[in-house]
Amino acid sequence: MRTDHLLFGAAYYLEYLPYNRLETDMEMMERAGMNTIRIAESTWSTLEPSDGVFDFTCIDRMIQTAAKHHLSVIIGTPTYAIPTWLVRKYPDILAVTANGQELYGHRQNMDITHPGYRYHAERIIRAMMEHLKDVPNIIGFQLDNETKSYGTAGPRVQQMFVASLKKKYPDILDFNREFGLDYWSNRVNDWADFPDVRGTINQSLAAEFQRFQRSLVTEFLSWQSDIIKEYKRDDQFITQNFDFDWTDHSYGYQPEVDQYDAARCMTVAGADIYHPSQDDLTGAEITVCGNIARSLKKDNYLILETEAQGLTPWLPYPGQLRLQAYSHLANGSNSVMYWHWHSIHNAIESYWKGVLSHDFSENATYREASEIGAEWKRIGTHLMNLKKENRVAILLDNLSLAGLRQFPLETTGDHSYNAVMRWLADALYRRNIEFDMVSSGERDFSAYDFLVVPALYAASDDLLGALDRYVAEGGHLIATFRTGFADEQLKIHHDVQPHLLGRCLGIHYDQFTYPKNVRIATTDGRSALTHDWMELVTCDTATPLAHYDHPFWGSYAAVTENAYQKGSALYLGAFFDDELLEPLLVSYLSRHGYEGLSEDTPQFPLIVKRGTNDFGKNLCYYFNYSGEPRTVIHTGNAGTDLLTDTPVAAGAVLTLAPWGLAVVES
Amino acid sequence: MRTDHLLFGAAYYLEYLPYNRLETDMEMMERAGMNTIRIAESTWSTLEPSDGVFDFTCIDRMIQTAAKHHLSVIIGTPTYAIPTWLVRKYPDILAVTANGQELYGHRQNMDITHPGYRYHAERIIRAMMEHLKDVPNIIGFQLDNETKSYGTAGPRVQQMFVASLKKKYPDILDFNREFGLDYWSNRVNDWADFPDVRGTINQSLAAEFQRFQRSLVTEFLSWQSDIIKEYKRDDQFITQNFDFDWTDHSYGYQPEVDQYDAARCMTVAGADIYHPSQDDLTGAEITVCGNIARSLKKDNYLILETEAQGLTPWLPYPGQLRLQAYSHLANGSNSVMYWHWHSIHNAIESYWKGVLSHDFSENATYREASEIGAEWKRIGTHLMNLKKENRVAILLDNLSLAGLRQFPLETTGDHSYNAVMRWLADALYRRNIEFDMVSSGERDFSAYDFLVVPALYAASDDLLGALDRYVAEGGHLIATFRTGFADEQLKIHHDVQPHLLGRCLGIHYDQFTYPKNVRIATTDGRSALTHDWMELVTCDTATPLAHYDHPFWGSYAAVTENAYQKGSALYLGAFFDDELLEPLLVSYLSRHGYEGLSEDTPQFPLIVKRGTNDFGKNLCYYFNYSGEPRTVIHTGNAGTDLLTDTPVAAGAVLTLAPWGLAVVES
Amino acid sequence: MRTDHLLFGAAYYLEYLPYNRLETDMEMMERAGMNTIRIAESTWSTLEPSDGVFDFTCIDRMIQTAAKHHLSVIIGTPTYAIPTWLVRKYPDILAVTANGQELYGHRQNMDITHPGYRYHAERIIRAMMEHLKDVPNIIGFQLDNETKSYGTAGPRVQQMFVASLKKKYPDILDFNREFGLDYWSNRVNDWADFPDVRGTINQSLAAEFQRFQRSLVTEFLSWQSDIIKEYKRDDQFITQNFDFDWTDHSYGYQPEVDQYDAARCMTVAGADIYHPSQDDLTGAEITVCGNIARSLKKDNYLILETEAQGLTPWLPYPGQLRLQAYSHLANGSNSVMYWHWHSIHNAIESYWKGVLSHDFSENATYREASEIGAEWKRIGTHLMNLKKENRVAILLDNLSLAGLRQFPLETTGDHSYNAVMRWLADALYRRNIEFDMVSSGERDFSAYDFLVVPALYAASDDLLGALDRYVAEGGHLIATFRTGFADEQLKIHHDVQPHLLGRCLGIHYDQFTYPKNVRIATTDGRSALTHDWMELVTCDTATPLAHYDHPFWGSYAAVTENAYQKGSALYLGAFFDDELLEPLLVSYLSRHGYEGLSEDTPQFPLIVKRGTNDFGKNLCYYFNYSGEPRTVIHTGNAGTDLLTDTPVAAGAVLTLAPWGLAVVES
Repeated sequence: MRTDHLLFGAAYYLEYLPYNRLETDMEMMERAGMNTIRIAESTWSTLEPSDGVFDFTCIDRMIQTAAKHHLSVIIGTPTYAIPTWLVRKYPDILAVTANGQELYGHRQNMDITHPGYRYHAERIIRAMMEHLKDVPNIIGFQLDNETKSYGTAGPRVQQMFVASLKKKYPDILDFNREFGLDYWSNRVNDWADFPDVRGTINQSLAAEFQRFQRSLVTEFLSWQSDIIKEYKRDDQFITQNFDFDWTDHSYGYQPEVDQYDAARCMTVAGADIYHPSQDDLTGAEITVCGNIARSLKKDNYLILETEAQGLTPWLPYPGQLRLQAYSHLANGSNSVMYWHWHSIHNAIESYWKGVLSHDFSENATYREASEIGAEWKRIGTHLMNLKKENRVAILLDNLSLAGLRQFPLETTGDHSYNAVMRWLADALYRRNIEFDMVSSGERDFSAYDFLVVPALYAASDDLLGALDRYVAEGGHLIATFRTGFADEQLKIHHDVQPHLLGRCLGIHYDQFTYPKNVRIATTDGRSALTHDWMELVTCDTATPLAHYDHPFWGSYAAVTENAYQKGSALYLGAFFDDELLEPLLVSYLSRHGYEGLSEDTPQFPLIVKRGTNDFGKNLCYYFNYSGEPRTVIHTGNAGTDLLTDTPVAAGAVLTLAPWGLAVVES
Repeated sequence: MRTDHLLFGAAYYLEYLPYNRLETDMEMMERAGMNTIRIAESTWSTLEPSDGVFDFTCIDRMIQTAAKHHLSVIIGTPTYAIPTWLVRKYPDILAVTANGQELYGHRQNMDITHPGYRYHAERIIRAMMEHLKDVPNIIGFQLDNETKSYGTAGPRVQQMFVASLKKKYPDILDFNREFGLDYWSNRVNDWADFPDVRGTINQSLAAEFQRFQRSLVTEFLSWQSDIIKEYKRDDQFITQNFDFDWTDHSYGYQPEVDQYDAARCMTVAGADIYHPSQDDLTGAEITVCGNIARSLKKDNYLILETEAQGLTPWLPYPGQLRLQAYSHLANGSNSVMYWHWHSIHNAIESYWKGVLSHDFSENATYREASEIGAEWKRIGTHLMNLKKENRVAILLDNLSLAGLRQFPLETTGDHSYNAVMRWLADALYRRNIEFDMVSSGERDFSAYDFLVVPALYAASDDLLGALDRYVAEGGHLIATFRTGFADEQLKIHHDVQPHLLGRCLGIHYDQFTYPKNVRIATTDGRSALTHDWMELVTCDTATPLAHYDHPFWGSYAAVTENAYQKGSALYLGAFFDDELLEPLLVSYLSRHGYEGLSEDTPQFPLIVKRGTNDFGKNLCYYFNYSGEPRTVIHTGNAGTDLLTDTPVAAGAVLTLAPWGLAVVES
Repeated sequence: MRTDHLLFGAAYYLEYLPYNRLETDMEMMERAGMNTIRIAESTWSTLEPSDGVFDFTCIDRMIQTAAKHHLSVIIGTPTYAIPTWLVRKYPDILAVTANGQELYGHRQNMDITHPGYRYHAERIIRAMMEHLKDVPNIIGFQLDNETKSYGTAGPRVQQMFVASLKKKYPDILDFNREFGLDYWSNRVNDWADFPDVRGTINQSLAAEFQRFQRSLVTEFLSWQSDIIKEYKRDDQFITQNFDFDWTDHSYGYQPEVDQYDAARCMTVAGADIYHPSQDDLTGAEITVCGNIARSLKKDNYLILETEAQGLTPWLPYPGQLRLQAYSHLANGSNSVMYWHWHSIHNAIESYWKGVLSHDFSENATYREASEIGAEWKRIGTHLMNLKKENRVAILLDNLSLAGLRQFPLETTGDHSYNAVMRWLADALYRRNIEFDMVSSGERDFSAYDFLVVPALYAASDDLLGALDRYVAEGGHLIATFRTGFADEQLKIHHDVQPHLLGRCLGIHYDQFTYPKNVRIATTDGRSALTHDWMELVTCDTATPLAHYDHPFWGSYAAVTENAYQKGSALYLGAFFDDELLEPLLVSYLSRHGYEGLSEDTPQFPLIVKRGTNDFGKNLCYYFNYSGEPRTVIHTGNAGTDLLTDTPVAAGAVLTLAPWGLAVVES
């Protein structure tokens, strides 16, 4: 998605306002340099207060007032929160999950496959689109919001699942064999015998059901997209607000959606990123999750939601809101949209605070947003549509994520896959090695010099073959423990581990354990504590870079490197501390042609990001992710600091304020 | 309630005895100086073993034997534990709560609004009252026991709730607006659409339902009281055994009952207080919860249950049982009744031990109780009906308590409100500043020089106006963070914070966060760590007494004082450590006319309590809440130590044994 | 059970193999010196894929190939995992427990009393037995596997329970009195009123229901045994794979089975033992659980399952697999059977690894197993049928175990009883004092010089009388806190504590508490911290060996010894640290005639085990449970080290490798 201006704004809910201040709000927005609002998602009961009674007054008023204040509008379909009358009409519309049937109240509690839900969702979307199709300042549409399957697993959904299996396995014997159902007498000899899948102890079957649930999301979004496409103008985009694996903030790749598949029905990827703040603000989530968003359509993306004040512990220090906004752009976003304009005065998100506090006054957050808005009015055309040419990519895989949720590492639980991914991604981030994400659906990785593969637990031979070929043809692979362990049904391979990649990695192993006080020692004298997982690796053709420093496991390798045909492969056989991972990666990349990495290169908390803008100029962002002032040497050509509009010589020393930044165009 | 003698005794259950020792028990009681037993509550299945078959033998035997041993009797209605035949008759009598339907077994598992329950409860009460009305040694009646709504939320109860809303909001649009139901599409456009309230994510609605549930308790107790009143003599009292917010002991104000409302139907307030013991015995719960009990009817109260040996970790050290008993009296109680006489030999409370252990022998606890009994026989008339004239009061508010359960502080969870209340109350307690409690239903606080308002999160403008007026007319207000934040429906105010009190407090703020390693520093050089909550306070007319000692929040005030018309107001904008709170409070009180507070004034573990007895004499209690002997200077007029019957000169030095005490009448 | 050779092998599942390698596997087994496989348990859906369709192909192939490779076969009945078609046929076959009805998937989810389950279980067992009765290399049968009641508590099961009560208590008044049901109005005046027992707060009733559930297990196993006996040959054994109280490994006596009762229907006891490994390998579980197994039929037993690689943290260090195997034999096992041969490639136990890893290669574990196999071929006849003559026994009691699950110690929860048992057992183990286990069903303990009684919380007068008599007649009793507290219905005794044993122990107490920073001090100057429980013991005729070192409890005894008629009794009134328990026990045993205990006697990690073999020779095992080499002095007569076939002089110094051992026959 190319844009002719950065989108800057917030979600807006006239529906939730305690009194009429629409005009005032939009005047304040315009004054802050905002140009876009996002509306309507989750307000079905306002749009259709009773079955078949439509009322678009609220939307119309917001759109009209927005137009007056030069604000564009993104319309969300309202389907992710259902009205009370719809539940009364179809009591079984509330999803039955592993925990029983949902109660009404929460959003995202419905069975997205329910025919009644679909009928009414389609009717309200069509009524809305019909009503809005000629409105000029609507620039795009958001399908639903943070869509998932919400664990829907009622009898009808399970029948759909069994039907899908039946189609996939015309011979039920194949099905039993493929899923190893003889184990614990779980064999299904007649499809009619299929038991409630919620009780299964067969993780292959559980993962298959989860895959089926993810497919429901893709189908649902495509279905909505097809409806929207019947109405939308060519200049209007279709997006979705993708969210991420959640700990107490956006953490990593989303387990419940095949985002690469789901994004196909959209014209631009959108996402929300929420992250720790104050002393815990690192920018890592903005980069990791932003990189995922950028990779979904291999293009710039939209940040449709991010925190203004956010949750109570997230109130930003002075400077942080601006630092965050520029970090999103430096990563390839074409927007920063806050969730949300004003804080809500009651219900569950009252303490998820917007730009304005509950008192609507011009607070510190508003003032800092205004600063951003003013700057972007001035220099936005230099910042938008930033393009990157990264030499490093990280492979993302839903199946392995699901596999490691079923069989987690020692202490990382449901987040095991993302813990490994973040281990690698954050190390790259801290060393200012920019990277893309790439889907495990790809087969050609030759665009990248370095491919990082975190814990690819479960993979088809086809994918593993593509990785082998990548190295054979000159690529440099960085793979971790647990890679190549199981097949697409989470069945563990019965040949030597790592399956199929052994030649490429030059190693094999047949035992592993959780390390207890096991250190690893590199051949060049470094050391680190391992945790959560260690494999007893034997080198075949590989060179050990580190061994276990342990009285009984000392003969096994922990980290290895292998030259394989035209390429090479680094294997990390254990999970160990960051302090060692960073130099190991830097050393490996440097040895294989990645330039400019030395101990003098800026490191976190100094973050450097680069790209090319619409003027064909290089942009170089320098961020200070700390509370103390810092200096950094500008390593690009002579240029201009866009923020201060002052020249910057090559090699000039820039001083960055606490939580401050510079943007040099050259 | 005036009494002509202190009540001293225990709950007694002939029903649970493993063999007949009624005569022995009561002889032992009489010998220990006891004069009262409390019986019959929770023994419905003994009183009415089958539907309509009544058997009062047990009660009769207890009453008669009690009379012989000069023991008065308090009769509890048996309704808080239902018999098995009643559940068989009405299976839906077991309450449906947020966790589904209760199983039989536990007490307090029924729907207190169930017509069948009410019918049978009334029948057994009337039968009992009819049977007992002429018994001379019955001195009073206890309605039910620790009554609550037990979370009853079944379909019929929810219909009652909706009916109450319908009555309150004839126009359903008002209802939707008042509760902000447009949020997440929760609008109810037809009362028939009303969804199961157990699933609501609208805390305003959840709090309204809790208020409704509390009203069921008030209604239930009044209904029982009205029945009792048809039978009772004028000399007999009506009470209820109120209990308190429970952590692993009595902790603070009860969230599930509007105790001030419920107490109206009684002639004397009663309560149970359970507290830590051994090295953790502080007396704070006896004071805080006792002050609540004293405030319910602004009169002396009854301790109907407290621990003898109590739970396993509570076995008292020598001296502690006596220290506790006098502490209750020093606080205004006219009784100490143990729960219970003998330890029970099986079922869930077997390890909640009574005065006697399971072997019924004369153990250490019995011997110490006998010491108390002997002393009270001698000096009880000097100790009973103690009256207090406190200059300080703490405001208690059910709605704010409910509000902070819905939106708790960072780490204090369901106990957030009481954590703030106890922070203040315990600081006063430790500095020997005696205080009353006062209901947020009051509007005139002029009886007190100092009004302490903990976290008044949700309040009507009427109440906030009364607080403003209190200061304007010369009162001194001590209010904490979170005060005046939301209205009666937990809707956050949309004007400047603190709502309506800004002028009186002389401050405003529009942002807050959880503090992480944030200290506050007072203008006089003290310092403390904050936790759980901090507001970024700006002084308008107030003087800052402390700022945040922090690189980014340093410009904001943490504690402020404001002179307002004839009075003043102290505002605590953050939750911080006790060591700073105590001197801050002492300094504020001293500066505004509270005399006798200096660093030399006795402090915890030396506790001093005062009052006036029936002889118009001043009583001064000196308690040593520690395991080492301590000395204290008698600061009243010359008098007599009642315990030793020896004269005490003004200024005399008293030596208190470990866990010991002195009572000086002057 | 006498055997003519040690059984060495593994569980084997042709059903779960990803490809046909039966011949290869059994060739590998034979080559490793294995001689036995255990098959068929939990494979019902393979044996009977559809209702009434039997298919024994898999079993037949395993048996035939086993025969070819000189492997014996143990056949397990397949009944502990039910097929899908059976659940479809009888949806109510899935047990209803306290958590609602089970879902299909897991094993052990059925109601073992369900008539449909019994009908089909009998049919498959009879079909299998008919089919297999003439197979020569089947050496025995295992009934079901790790059988329990699985918490079955549905309406029909509860009716059976009520019927059993009705039979036991013809007069319902007796029932009410016996269970103290007047408490909290729980009285049942008509059996038809009997409420859902899952909700009971009467632990006497709960424990009675658990006893009933345990009786279902005994009945179920006897029923299976009776069927098997109709078919089996005289030379074939019947066993069951008993498992143990589980923390994250085998921990202590099984709460859900009356193993002594259940074992009656078997010809040999079998068990599985799983334990920590690597640095946490101590051998304690092998000894404690093995001693239980040996005691069930007072004979040698079979280890039917133990870990090869086991769970991820258990991967053995080099030497540990062998150390463990010999430890089982040294304890009286006649077998070591691994669970299992090959690791499973999917489903819930994929990471419970067998001898072989998923790749079936000859890994380190296989190589160490082969070493064991080779040695046992050579010297197995010297090792099997080891007999012991222990002077010490520990009493085991299901009822007290249940009682302490209902009323646990402060921090030990459901494992309270076993925590006390292990406290004593492990101290004996570490000091190389070998012991038997003995059932609380016994009445004559005179075979032992020392009887150790951990926390005999609930006991009949008959049993307590037997203990008293044991001491009176010269025995030495070591009893702990909580002994003799309650009767067989968990009703606490109402006479002086400890009930009935007071004279024998020479003490009494009437109060107890959880200790907080309470130390005990022995009269000879040792000291230890107490935890979880302390009784305030007064000596009547006993001599205090230790007091509480505490300002308020200092007058009470913590450990006492009493001379009583011809014997003596040691009482441990508190739970305290191991460092003091060991010398206390050693001192008591030494003073009362147990020879050879001095501070020079080998202690853990050097473990010494003794017995007599079939040649009438003494075997002396020396185990080094540590990662460093150690020396030990051979204290028996001159003999031969069987492993090295070298002579060992009396008093010779043996050097044991890390995790190494020696076996001296003399």
